[in-house]
Amino acid sequence: MTEPGAAIQGLHRLSDADRRGLYRVLLSRRDVRGQFLPDAIPHGVLARVLTAAHHAPSVGFMQPWSFILVRSPEVRGRIKAAFSAANDEAAALFEGGRQATYRALKLEGILEAPLNICVTCDRDRVGPVVLGRTHIPTMDLYSTVCAVENLWLAARAEGLGLGWVSIISEPALKEILGLPERVVPVAYLCIGKVSHFFDQPELATRGWRQRLKLADLVCLDRWEGARDDALGTELDLAQAQAEAGEMG
Amino acid sequence: MTEPGAAIQGLHRLSDADRRGLYRVLLSRRDVRGQFLPDAIPHGVLARVLTAAHHAPSVGFMQPWSFILVRSPEVRGRIKAAFSAANDEAAALFEGGRQATYRALKLEGILEAPLNICVTCDRDRVGPVVLGRTHIPTMDLYSTVCAVENLWLAARAEGLGLGWVSIISEPALKEILGLPERVVPVAYLCIGKVSHFFDQPELATRGWRQRLKLADLVCLDRWEGARDDALGTELDLAQAQAEAGEMG
Repeated sequence: MTEPGAAIQGLHRLSDADRRGLYRVLLSRRDVRGQFLPDAIPHGVLARVLTAAHHAPSVGFMQPWSFILVRSPEVRGRIKAAFSAANDEAAALFEGGRQATYRALKLEGILEAPLNICVTCDRDRVGPVVLGRTHIPTMDLYSTVCAVENLWLAARAEGLGLGWVSIISEPALKEILGLPERVVPVAYLCIGKVSHFFDQPELATRGWRQRLKLADLVCLDRWEGARDDALGTELDLAQAQAEAGEMG
Repeated sequence: MTEPGAAIQGLHRLSDADRRGLYRVLLSRRDVRGQFLPDAIPHGVLARVLTAAHHAPSVGFMQPWSFILVRSPEVRGRIKAAFSAANDEAAALFEGGRQATYRALKLEGILEAPLNICVTCDRDRVGPVVLGRTHIPTMDLYSTVCAVENLWLAARAEGLGLGWVSIISEPALKEILGLPERVVPVAYLCIGKVSHFFDQPELATRGWRQRLKLADLVCLDRWEGARDDALGTELDLAQAQAEAGEMG
């Protein structure tokens, strides 16, 4: 399938240093809600983080994403109000002690973070028929999520905390940001320098939920299919290394 | 918000070497369809790649994903047949020269890759009420996509090619893999060693679609809001560096 003129990459497996760099970023990434510092993000750093997002995979090379940088205090105030309304509704869905725990959690940094970013998906960017989206219509939303994850990893590498605010009504978000009908606000992010990163996910240290055992989530050939014991041993080992913060 | 006993990470910004490692992986990642080698993936490598996926962010720390490793030639044969049926339907949606180009593209490596992985989302893993999913019900699907992107990046770092097969009927996939109603097959992946990685996305070199200019996708405070010219200059610079394969 090599095309005449199609250049190929010189490296297959990346260097040990590059692999470890990737794993360090993956393992130290956190959802940050409470430790933002007001310092502005330098343009050069922000440009790298957005470029990382723009190099995400996308169905049919559609690149359906846009990035709305929300700096305006007025706009952020409206977003914060929409969050608060949704969060009150959400809290009421949990019962007893669970509700008390929920209400004690800080779940966003909309006003404290120096920048918010809304990552959107324009479902009509290339017209109605998209290579690879013909049978799974959500593929363009999934592509946009890949961009969010790339952005998140680059932010961690650059020392920026990032939190994904999902407790908000999508219609409210669309109205506040003036999104046309065809554009979905896939992720609303708070981003900025932080005083510190936690070592473990906050929902684990606060007793909400613990990390699952990976080997229990891997099976062969069909749902609840057989396990490969030799692979299971390696999964346990890799998970233990990851828990210790180093892998590869 | 520091909890008594909540350990914090020693590093804010990662080292230049780690940052460059991340960017190298992000920029050299490709959607691979045609260059798979039959070599089995060592268990240790596969374990690291799956551990990377398992460390993705997830709404409410739900970790809704499972990984079905599809090795069986019989199962893969059925998947390939489902792809072929969908791909014929898809090709008919494109017109004239575009259809000829579409039909000439190789879009999957289901039988050639040494392994297929279906990454699923169990929408009921923690019961009906999920922290952070109360207002945007697709958040668990988005979490699963983050796991796919982590898996993809780790695969590239380990020298494994990966391709996402999206031209397939979801009901067919569910039936073949025996997924219960509540479980969504978010991504069907082909993974394995490859003869080479292309330098640029195949859909670009084959003339299907080119990479967009990032600065055109970034604006302030609302849809089609103002541009920040100083940031635009940095975006152009970062995109040029990325195009050259190095950033940071």
